[in-house]
Amino acid sequence: MSIHSVRREQCHLAWDNSIPPAIRIKSGQTVTFDCVDASNGQIDASSTVATLGSLVFSRLDQVNGPVYVEEAQPGDTLQVDVLSIETGEWGWSALIPGFGLLADEFPEPELKIWKLNKDEGFAWFNEAKGIKIPLRPFAGEMGVARGVKGSYSTIPPYNTGGNIDTKHVTVGSTLFLPIEVEGALFSTGDGHAAQDDGGTAIETSIQVTVRLTIRNDRPYTKTPHFSTTASDKDEEYYCTTGVDSGSTATMSAVRHMIDFLCTEHQLKRTEAYMLCSVAGDLRLHEVVDMPNYVVGMMMPQSIFGGSS
Amino acid sequence: MSIHSVRREQCHLAWDNSIPPAIRIKSGQTVTFDCVDASNGQIDASSTVATLGSLVFSRLDQVNGPVYVEEAQPGDTLQVDVLSIETGEWGWSALIPGFGLLADEFPEPELKIWKLNKDEGFAWFNEAKGIKIPLRPFAGEMGVARGVKGSYSTIPPYNTGGNIDTKHVTVGSTLFLPIEVEGALFSTGDGHAAQDDGGTAIETSIQVTVRLTIRNDRPYTKTPHFSTTASDKDEEYYCTTGVDSGSTATMSAVRHMIDFLCTEHQLKRTEAYMLCSVAGDLRLHEVVDMPNYVVGMMMPQSIFGGSS
Repeated sequence: MSIHSVRREQCHLAWDNSIPPAIRIKSGQTVTFDCVDASNGQIDASSTVATLGSLVFSRLDQVNGPVYVEEAQPGDTLQVDVLSIETGEWGWSALIPGFGLLADEFPEPELKIWKLNKDEGFAWFNEAKGIKIPLRPFAGEMGVARGVKGSYSTIPPYNTGGNIDTKHVTVGSTLFLPIEVEGALFSTGDGHAAQDDGGTAIETSIQVTVRLTIRNDRPYTKTPHFSTTASDKDEEYYCTTGVDSGSTATMSAVRHMIDFLCTEHQLKRTEAYMLCSVAGDLRLHEVVDMPNYVVGMMMPQSIFGGSS
Repeated sequence: MSIHSVRREQCHLAWDNSIPPAIRIKSGQTVTFDCVDASNGQIDASSTVATLGSLVFSRLDQVNGPVYVEEAQPGDTLQVDVLSIETGEWGWSALIPGFGLLADEFPEPELKIWKLNKDEGFAWFNEAKGIKIPLRPFAGEMGVARGVKGSYSTIPPYNTGGNIDTKHVTVGSTLFLPIEVEGALFSTGDGHAAQDDGGTAIETSIQVTVRLTIRNDRPYTKTPHFSTTASDKDEEYYCTTGVDSGSTATMSAVRHMIDFLCTEHQLKRTEAYMLCSVAGDLRLHEVVDMPNYVVGMMMPQSIFGGSS
């Protein structure tokens, strides 16, 4: 039971330390944020691919807040305990022209509306083929205001957090953020119903409850840190790799997984790309044998062959 | 029981398709490779940091082979089933000036000799502090000759494999490599006793047994692919991140884990860097919210607080 709440209309579209707080709390108190999806309500369960054509990009990726924590001073660390995340009944994933790791190779828009089977904990990607995605909700955006003056887009992540899109920061995880301004000014949003390491996830509305605690008894955290529990219990993976300089290797790994999925599971290229985006793990396997990194796109095999 | 074997002296220091085969086998047969450590025997259990000063770099990272597989044609895929890996009784890790992700920040050499407790499956990093590393052996080098003429260093990985340093390719895993020359010309080496995503691992001699099968019934693999089983059973992680362009973010993530380990576990910076190198997971958390990647260095917490 949170004693504080941030309503869905209490949101902002930039990190800017001059934005007035939505609410004020004390260190150690909990807050529930009611967040619409990252389209800021522009996409709904009846949307079609045509909807993407009229998306107003400047309204995307709003975050709810900011929350002023009374004790917070620059140089302290904000501890964010993620206590609960409740998604909506549906979600969406999209290929948006110009956006995403392989944007040049996927020029056409695509939209997928998902039904979230919350009781059973999964969503069908393709029921006929038996492909289903486990639901592991998290908030893509969690951050605090930057110390520098001005208005900074909520799209890139910063050392103060924001759009970190880190699936490991889920219920039970604890995120640590560097505080750069008085009050910390914490905001969150960008609900995701399922894991991904990049691209659009299964985007959805969320109600997220966190406990915010000011820590000045530990070293200053200069970038986001977190603690989490993994539970890949004997999960089988098929992994494709890219062997090249850093970001080129990442693109190569994803491209080869797309090729593999199209052949192995008879998916369309757009479907395969979307599946990478919602279900794949991107790992840096090797980063020192210059000039080439090895980046792996690891696809859990349990998503295939599920029965309904 | 392998019907073929490659001896430790049957090794080479470059990928070069003009190197004569060590042995010839048929598709589907197994081979055991007896491989000295990646120092090519220049470091032994009694070595000290002074030994690093006299390392002959051109002798490092030799691979054993090549194995000519009779049916292999360019355009086929080589399936490598990893059947067993047996390490030596000891291993080494080093900080080598000029080498590694944070080479500029660690100019002084360091050498650590590890005793590998093979029966119990771990090696002490620091017994007094209760820090121990689980042994999960793999061969850092697995590759085939490149199609292009010439001699290519075994240090960088290529699309044909080689120094992929991928801890997930362990016993029970299957690696797929693109064949570019007749006979495939497979070689392996660079034994590692424990996981890492880069840097020196716990380097050790290995006896590795693989089954080599030519596959022309599946699409050509353009980069290394593999299938593996993860078993992070409810492992707890503490993760630091870097938020920046690709390789800068990677360095930042590692640097912050070093800071964290030094404070939290009272380690020296060189110890912390070495621990990142042998025990950390590097993950790409976010690669699309330009211009910044989020890279995570995830440290399993089970390595701390072990009792002897």
